[in-house]
Amino acid sequence: MYRRLNAIPEEWGTAVTCQAMVFGNMGDTSATGVAFTRDPATGERRIYGEYLLNAQGEDVVAGIRTPQYLTRAARERAGAKATSLEEALPSTFGELVHVFDLLERHYRDMQDIEFTVERGRLWMLQTRSGKRTARASIRVAVEMAQEGLISEAEAIGRVEPGALDQLLHPTLDPKAPREVLTRGLPASPGAASGAIVLDAVTAERRKEQGQAVILVRTETSPEDIAGMHAAVGILTARGGMTSHAAVVARGMGRPCVSGAGSISVDMAARRVRIGSRALSEGDTITIDGASGEVMAGRVPTVEPELAGDFATLMEWADRHRRMRVRANAETPEDCRVARGFGAEGIGLCRTEHMFFEPGRITAVREMILAEDADGRRAALARLLPEQRADFEAIFRIMDGLPVTIRLLDPPLHEFLPTRDAEFDEVAAASGVDVDTLRRRAAELHEANPMLGHRGCRLGITFPEIYEMQARAIFEAAHAVGGGVKLEIMVPLVATGRELEIIALLIARVAHAVSAETGAHAEHMVGTMIELPRAALMAGEIAHTAAFFSFGTNDLTQTTLGISRDDAGRFLGAYVDQGIYPVDPFVTIDRDGVGALVKIASERGRAVSPHIKLGICGEHGGDPASIAFCEEIGLDYVSCSPFRVPIARLAAAQAALVRSA
Amino acid sequence: MYRRLNAIPEEWGTAVTCQAMVFGNMGDTSATGVAFTRDPATGERRIYGEYLLNAQGEDVVAGIRTPQYLTRAARERAGAKATSLEEALPSTFGELVHVFDLLERHYRDMQDIEFTVERGRLWMLQTRSGKRTARASIRVAVEMAQEGLISEAEAIGRVEPGALDQLLHPTLDPKAPREVLTRGLPASPGAASGAIVLDAVTAERRKEQGQAVILVRTETSPEDIAGMHAAVGILTARGGMTSHAAVVARGMGRPCVSGAGSISVDMAARRVRIGSRALSEGDTITIDGASGEVMAGRVPTVEPELAGDFATLMEWADRHRRMRVRANAETPEDCRVARGFGAEGIGLCRTEHMFFEPGRITAVREMILAEDADGRRAALARLLPEQRADFEAIFRIMDGLPVTIRLLDPPLHEFLPTRDAEFDEVAAASGVDVDTLRRRAAELHEANPMLGHRGCRLGITFPEIYEMQARAIFEAAHAVGGGVKLEIMVPLVATGRELEIIALLIARVAHAVSAETGAHAEHMVGTMIELPRAALMAGEIAHTAAFFSFGTNDLTQTTLGISRDDAGRFLGAYVDQGIYPVDPFVTIDRDGVGALVKIASERGRAVSPHIKLGICGEHGGDPASIAFCEEIGLDYVSCSPFRVPIARLAAAQAALVRSA
Repeated sequence: MYRRLNAIPEEWGTAVTCQAMVFGNMGDTSATGVAFTRDPATGERRIYGEYLLNAQGEDVVAGIRTPQYLTRAARERAGAKATSLEEALPSTFGELVHVFDLLERHYRDMQDIEFTVERGRLWMLQTRSGKRTARASIRVAVEMAQEGLISEAEAIGRVEPGALDQLLHPTLDPKAPREVLTRGLPASPGAASGAIVLDAVTAERRKEQGQAVILVRTETSPEDIAGMHAAVGILTARGGMTSHAAVVARGMGRPCVSGAGSISVDMAARRVRIGSRALSEGDTITIDGASGEVMAGRVPTVEPELAGDFATLMEWADRHRRMRVRANAETPEDCRVARGFGAEGIGLCRTEHMFFEPGRITAVREMILAEDADGRRAALARLLPEQRADFEAIFRIMDGLPVTIRLLDPPLHEFLPTRDAEFDEVAAASGVDVDTLRRRAAELHEANPMLGHRGCRLGITFPEIYEMQARAIFEAAHAVGGGVKLEIMVPLVATGRELEIIALLIARVAHAVSAETGAHAEHMVGTMIELPRAALMAGEIAHTAAFFSFGTNDLTQTTLGISRDDAGRFLGAYVDQGIYPVDPFVTIDRDGVGALVKIASERGRAVSPHIKLGICGEHGGDPASIAFCEEIGLDYVSCSPFRVPIARLAAAQAALVRSA
Repeated sequence: MYRRLNAIPEEWGTAVTCQAMVFGNMGDTSATGVAFTRDPATGERRIYGEYLLNAQGEDVVAGIRTPQYLTRAARERAGAKATSLEEALPSTFGELVHVFDLLERHYRDMQDIEFTVERGRLWMLQTRSGKRTARASIRVAVEMAQEGLISEAEAIGRVEPGALDQLLHPTLDPKAPREVLTRGLPASPGAASGAIVLDAVTAERRKEQGQAVILVRTETSPEDIAGMHAAVGILTARGGMTSHAAVVARGMGRPCVSGAGSISVDMAARRVRIGSRALSEGDTITIDGASGEVMAGRVPTVEPELAGDFATLMEWADRHRRMRVRANAETPEDCRVARGFGAEGIGLCRTEHMFFEPGRITAVREMILAEDADGRRAALARLLPEQRADFEAIFRIMDGLPVTIRLLDPPLHEFLPTRDAEFDEVAAASGVDVDTLRRRAAELHEANPMLGHRGCRLGITFPEIYEMQARAIFEAAHAVGGGVKLEIMVPLVATGRELEIIALLIARVAHAVSAETGAHAEHMVGTMIELPRAALMAGEIAHTAAFFSFGTNDLTQTTLGISRDDAGRFLGAYVDQGIYPVDPFVTIDRDGVGALVKIASERGRAVSPHIKLGICGEHGGDPASIAFCEEIGLDYVSCSPFRVPIARLAAAQAALVRSA
């Protein structure tokens, strides 16, 4: 039986299956229901579902009648009176349990099932793999493997790595009432409540007073780093999923809602308008970085439970993955979190974040605004013990695991004073008058700082900066008494010559520190590959580099010509219109950026077969991008500490796919 | 005879040639002199040189005795008394003339010769190809070819294309006295004198009053374009050879001195400090864009003479080159200059320059600050007749030669008002209050505008802008009555899909205009390749593009990760340290940018064998880059109108090298 459709060629038709209907509404020996073979919320192995006597399927889902529990245990737990199926039709129930078991064994997964009982006879209407929470997916996978139903490898493949993110952060108590004020982008998962603060200094001060604070800014900049650390959550009016706030927050594991357009910040009045509500600094709000919701007052949260199943799954993943997983971290706190989550080293320690610490920033500013190399050296000498202490702390925590330290990267003007008080501080410290400082600060302004005087360009034009950093690194390695697996990484290289110049500088400092201490710190020198030219010239660069770390954030910016900070204006429309299938800052653009990573890997290995290759952009924590890294045979991925478990699982899945 | 040197291996030695010495100081039948076989300043075929009787070579060059002329004619022209060699030793002179002729015929070039006469016997001490001015090089090459001494092809190869630049602009009268105040970078050749003006509006006003003005700015921005057009020269305190001022000035053929660090502009007092001199707006200065000198007052200039030899050489070059040469031009004046210099079409007509015209900029600003598409459309409707008139004028001047029009490219905020009066104007025109306009302007600010919301991203998010431009183009083509070789170019494409979307938009508008006018304007749609991703995806893009024009300015910025505006801080040190052999914005970086151009050409042609390939960055006027374009087989280069002759010659040389 078929009919012709105008739009379909004549020889085509549509097939129709005719089948008899069964009725669950034929009296009290009839019923209809839905069931999961395991609990889709927790993953526990117990039948979970609802039914109604003398009803059809639509009655169960329509909400007109209140469905009843399937099992007596569930009814009793809920304190419900209406008989369970187990009690009402015990033999049908027994048959059902048997069928559930059969179906699970056949499909080798938790089933979502619809059934009808017509005058005592059980009919199965539908079965499919059931949707489940992240927590349930782990438990189901692990238990099914333990039951022998699936293999360890299959268990690994059953859990969506990205979903783990929900488990690693506090979440809102689902039962708690909430008053949603507005909604922004879910920029970094986790929920947090705190008092509104409008700047980094206030955030730090209130935190010292023991208060939980949420930093609310129009948008954040590197100056806000200390405030972001002090805050339990971050909320911005502007910026996308890959804005400064979002990226840094994810790196820190802080909940963040970004680009909440209906927020306006009035710094003068110290007030914030959120949707239609006017709030003051100090008022309490709650943000949910997983949903993007901003709520009035405090909404209770639930702490993450990294249960035994989670640990088991991670252990299995580690057995099956080929790539190493490292973390991007620079504070002792982040390093500890990273180790706790199983990071096998630090893949990116951004030394500039240390420059923003209060108590140092003035010396940094003196250095930048100095007239000459001598002036810079004087300021750098004050920074040296601080940086040495930073590195020492990291080396002790990482305890023999490899640590990749990236030399100073961002354009200097990011560190410049902006407020009068800041200029006054630098003037007092350096003895240079404020007008001169202001003029010099203005001179440092850049039209496109992303493509400006930054990275190794700083090291080449102001070698004393990298000399200080290299000295701090080697002295710290000496102070912890050896055993440090040290990798020094040079940013923004575009030519082999740049790396040679910096590698020589590092070698000179290493030699000098050895001569002073009598001890030699083993170390490797490598580079970021984050410019298209560096990817193309990887063969030349590999003559000097012991490792490449693909900085795919910047490589995406330059290859696609998209500034991450400015992409919000059009990238949404671009993804909507299918110009890019997904945000290329979230998942690596295989055709463009990926092609360059592949070229660089091939050319690097052609010159230096054992060169170590890794990735340290945001993509290092994205499962789809991790799959790409596995395909082209990178040695490791490095990501935010909170994404390390995701990367471990994704790397295992990718290895299993590759070996399949 | 040899001696051992410590540093040289034992089996090596140095050879010494022993030769008898001749003496020009053996009495009045002895002499010594230096000569050029042709005049090295003008190229004229006459012996040019000096000698002294009874003297050694060092006496001629040491300046103790005044040398005498070689020929009687030269002595008489100079009104000198001391006998010429021709008169003093006529038979030796005859012998010398014969030897000069022999040497020129042997070496097939103008010779620079040293000789000595010892007691009546002529000895030749040295001969080599003589250095000469640009003008002389042309005359010598053309005349030697006409004399049959060298071939036309050799004549083409004898002239350094870059040297032509000196001939195409006015130069300072070498005899005039001058007081140099400071020196900057020789950013755009030519010399000019005029009254100092400190902003574009004043420049335009004074020009209307018939005054020659020199625009003096700390640095220029697109807002200054009209002022740069109005000025006879441009002087900036900041910015390198590739700063906005330098690039635009070269494009306009205006003399420019950039980065003159000792200049400070006081806008409030309308005064300028140049070196130690305080000057006011309206004071006269002279700049020499070929040397970088800034002088007090007016220094007389000499107009360029594009003599017959120049035209002959160009004609020969045209016969031997394979690549077409087009110009980057958008004003009727520039188009006329381009045709005068032999441009075979417009390779890049930047529509945004038209947006800065006074009388339009307010409508442009209204468009940018409009709340929605309707608001934008209303403002665009006012711009439509203006753009149509622009294109009509260009089409008429180019008279059937191809014209490549690039749709709007720069980030919108470049057009934004900055001064109060400008905000007031837009508020009055649009009826939107100033506070709202200011907020919207602030929202449009970008962290890295070069990588921001610009190019086809504007066309995709605000299609009404490109619709207006396409309509203006087609209506203009219709108005001139057909015969327009029209090429519409889409900027900043990174994916095939972007070009498809814009090509469809253009096709829709073409269809609509055809339906209204009853005439169809033939046209091609192509794209800039100016992002690394576009180069990599050239195969995909070639499915839609009828031509690629390599925008190597932006491609250099993204591939190397260097903002042209900010490069001044480190690029000098980079070239000094050999990291880049030359400024990559002046000569194409073959290894990086060149490799991408080559990849894109190959991938584009693999999909579309007849796709037209050209270059329209600054490199299109650089001889070394033109040689690269010839090597990889591009179809045309496009450059500033004033560089068209350079490109014609360089293209011919490159073709000759390639076919050799």
